[in-house]
Amino acid sequence: MKQFPEPTKRRLVKLASLLCQQNQERLTSKAIQSLTGWSDSLIRRDILLLGYKGGVSNGYKVKELYEAICTEFGIENQTEIKKNCCIVGLGRFGAALLETSLFENSPFAVVAGFDSNVNRTEILHSTFPLYPALKMEAVIAEKKIEFALLAVPEKDAQKMADRLAECGIKGIVNYTNRVLTLPENIAVENVSPVTALTNLAAEAANI
Amino acid sequence: MKQFPEPTKRRLVKLASLLCQQNQERLTSKAIQSLTGWSDSLIRRDILLLGYKGGVSNGYKVKELYEAICTEFGIENQTEIKKNCCIVGLGRFGAALLETSLFENSPFAVVAGFDSNVNRTEILHSTFPLYPALKMEAVIAEKKIEFALLAVPEKDAQKMADRLAECGIKGIVNYTNRVLTLPENIAVENVSPVTALTNLAAEAANI
Repeated sequence: MKQFPEPTKRRLVKLASLLCQQNQERLTSKAIQSLTGWSDSLIRRDILLLGYKGGVSNGYKVKELYEAICTEFGIENQTEIKKNCCIVGLGRFGAALLETSLFENSPFAVVAGFDSNVNRTEILHSTFPLYPALKMEAVIAEKKIEFALLAVPEKDAQKMADRLAECGIKGIVNYTNRVLTLPENIAVENVSPVTALTNLAAEAANI
Repeated sequence: MKQFPEPTKRRLVKLASLLCQQNQERLTSKAIQSLTGWSDSLIRRDILLLGYKGGVSNGYKVKELYEAICTEFGIENQTEIKKNCCIVGLGRFGAALLETSLFENSPFAVVAGFDSNVNRTEILHSTFPLYPALKMEAVIAEKKIEFALLAVPEKDAQKMADRLAECGIKGIVNYTNRVLTLPENIAVENVSPVTALTNLAAEAANI
């Protein structure tokens, strides 16, 4: 796989998730600018780095460009098989993630939720099954779950992340403030509200 | 202000939020590696780019390094005045953000919540006041709110973002899947579950 600058990769991946929600056949770099806020010259450079040659004066072909990005970054085409995900920790925050409409039209399907408190798994409503945490290893293997949304209390975050790592999970979306220490082959996306606000404040200071 | 590569900036800002939670006087780049998962050579290079010269063989001085990063990126020292934030949209997801423990030991204080449904603002419990959305402009000005956590339904996202922009807000943490079109002087951090999973899947594909 080609090596991309991290910001380019992030923009292209984000662009793919936008493209698959578009109904137009073509989009110009100007139209993408208005969708994303990135400058049209930056967008053209990113697409050039991708090596996609289909851009013409009346715009990029939406479907082709989408497929080129998916192929490059190993993103499943959203019309194909979805990637299975699970929610670990069903407190107030984790329970909010049970809303399946959050994942509609996405290449991800949440197929299980876990909590160490059996009462939570019995009380909460969801369109997929909720399990006590002790069944995590068995369910992740059985359902071929690739990604986890981690929303446990901060004190339990590392311990649960370690268990997820042992299950062979590929990546963790970390909603806790705890910085996770994990093997290098496990991807982590830190999105706690404080992390998001901290990044935002840094960005605002740079504008 | 110096121009930093975006990944360096993000790592340094994240590092600052970690450093202020540490009790040790010094941390080596190896210790930071175990905290963050970034390689020690990458960490040393980032700190070199920052221009901080205090690193010695027995580690960086935690407090000095923290202050150097805060100064560079305009982050308020966490012992100083907090930045005021608000939550816009108090559905299941926005309501989960009412948990003030999420923001403990952070430089951010959530001081208001808004929802267009008055019933929600009356039913939900929080340690700060909740208002009907029509009071948003007045409250944001009065409380000097700088940042908003946007958790409205997707169809309302752009409209509410436009109103926040007109209030002079500096940045928006966007929990919706909608890509916001905003003036360039407003920072946006996109952290919907699908965006986080999409970034994670791309990262996992690159590992």
